[in-house]
Amino acid sequence: MEKEISKERAAFLAKDYARGFIHYCQFEPEVVEYGFFQSRVSILEHHRQQDGFIHAGVMATMADHTAGYATFTTVPEEFQILTIEFKINFLRPAHGEALVCRSNVIREGKQIIIAESEVFDIREGTETMSAKAMVTLMAVHREKLTSKS
Amino acid sequence: MEKEISKERAAFLAKDYARGFIHYCQFEPEVVEYGFFQSRVSILEHHRQQDGFIHAGVMATMADHTAGYATFTTVPEEFQILTIEFKINFLRPAHGEALVCRSNVIREGKQIIIAESEVFDIREGTETMSAKAMVTLMAVHREKLTSKS
Amino acid sequence: MEKEISKERAAFLAKDYARGFIHYCQFEPEVVEYGFFQSRVSILEHHRQQDGFIHAGVMATMADHTAGYATFTTVPEEFQILTIEFKINFLRPAHGEALVCRSNVIREGKQIIIAESEVFDIREGTETMSAKAMVTLMAVHREKLTSKS
Amino acid sequence: MEKEISKERAAFLAKDYARGFIHYCQFEPEVVEYGFFQSRVSILEHHRQQDGFIHAGVMATMADHTAGYATFTTVPEEFQILTIEFKINFLRPAHGEALVCRSNVIREGKQIIIAESEVFDIREGTETMSAKAMVTLMAVHREKLTSKS
Repeated sequence: MEKEISKERAAFLAKDYARGFIHYCQFEPEVVEYGFFQSRVSILEHHRQQDGFIHAGVMATMADHTAGYATFTTVPEEFQILTIEFKINFLRPAHGEALVCRSNVIREGKQIIIAESEVFDIREGTETMSAKAMVTLMAVHREKLTSKS
Repeated sequence: MEKEISKERAAFLAKDYARGFIHYCQFEPEVVEYGFFQSRVSILEHHRQQDGFIHAGVMATMADHTAGYATFTTVPEEFQILTIEFKINFLRPAHGEALVCRSNVIREGKQIIIAESEVFDIREGTETMSAKAMVTLMAVHREKLTSKS
Repeated sequence: MEKEISKERAAFLAKDYARGFIHYCQFEPEVVEYGFFQSRVSILEHHRQQDGFIHAGVMATMADHTAGYATFTTVPEEFQILTIEFKINFLRPAHGEALVCRSNVIREGKQIIIAESEVFDIREGTETMSAKAMVTLMAVHREKLTSKS
Repeated sequence: MEKEISKERAAFLAKDYARGFIHYCQFEPEVVEYGFFQSRVSILEHHRQQDGFIHAGVMATMADHTAGYATFTTVPEEFQILTIEFKINFLRPAHGEALVCRSNVIREGKQIIIAESEVFDIREGTETMSAKAMVTLMAVHREKLTSKS
């Protein structure tokens, strides 16, 4: 994809990324390009589960939300994005000091958009893919967001 | 399923449910039975996303984790549970005052276990199903948990 | 759901069910109700895989197609149905003399519809659930079917 | 992955690929490498659905089965492969003269293996990705295949 987004739009999406639950989870935006979004989280104790691994829910939330913002880069500004569904495979338990998520739109569309997210476990600077998700999203015009599609 | 779990085991799982990320998300256990687990969360501002809806990641985390604890009720105490993968459909945007998640094991197994989770949006006391997940889990003996399956 | 479909519509959908690949697979319609469709296939050698089990692809095709026809019962006649995605779990290997698939719409919609399919393995008259699928479908007006949504 | 499989093993898997339902569907093996399998089918009328598109079940069967044979290349010869579950997204309706499926193992394992399949619609020699699947498989020792895992 050789399309581009404006600096203003990229800056807006980066700023908009970490609100509400995502801010609470301390995820941060890193890279914004047309059809692509990368995010990161430094792992704290409250991101882990009962056995000390990073919780699957942290990875799932990151995979979903980052896919949503990758999708935002491909639609007009007056559209909001909702997740219809996603599926995530956990390839290996993650227990590093950070996670990085890279999401790519693999099918653009006016309404239905498909994105993939790969979540990497960062340990002493090396990356290991820990989870991979396929996400189906829907673009909804801002004015119709309260109605049911 | 007419099998039962001991009161001690049920109490242990209820107490064990809300550690790490789940404690941080403020999810609470409600009902523990053989093959079944129910959890609840009172919605605060930090559970929402940019448009005011409850974040899909909150529902996904709840669906995954509650399925994991439903699965714990069906395996011997020396086994831990890991999520292999899950898929979740978001049926309707959720924006109520609480979520309730009910998870049922639909296929028991010594290694591979399948559970379903239904997440309900609670508004003024009425329940609406907001998301449904199918979760594939693996039981791993505690002593083998650090190795790769 | 207490809605109903007309006898004519039910008869049309039953007849329409088994065309092309579905006819080739010898699947047959059994029950048509509002939001529900049931199909059956008598298992022949060509439905099996290399180990003698019924092929996962037979179950997946049945789960997808029957969900599609359950969905047809909930939309106006001028709409066609496309599968956006599905996920299927194989709970137990199937090796009986027939399969029965029951599909229920769990979320109606003007555009996005969610259905579930359960595939049962029939052995000497007893049913065992062998696979379960969650299917996301899209209703597309007949006149727009060639365009990209 | 720089591992290799023997010519004998590759030839065996290519021959073994198209039995039972897969033979009936006329799928053919094309390329066998360590962690990779490619298959093809020339589209006939019986591969289509009611609107003339290639049936989603044809693509799903191909995605599942080809992923299974990609997985076979990574396990010892005495192991059989069962599909635990898969999820497939249909990116665009397919209506060309052939389909090609390429499957890659993205997570090797002694028991649980994850593969991805991409299905391409071939029209006048050009390829368009029409579907993408993520498949979770299990390696089972031949002697244990009749038991439940």
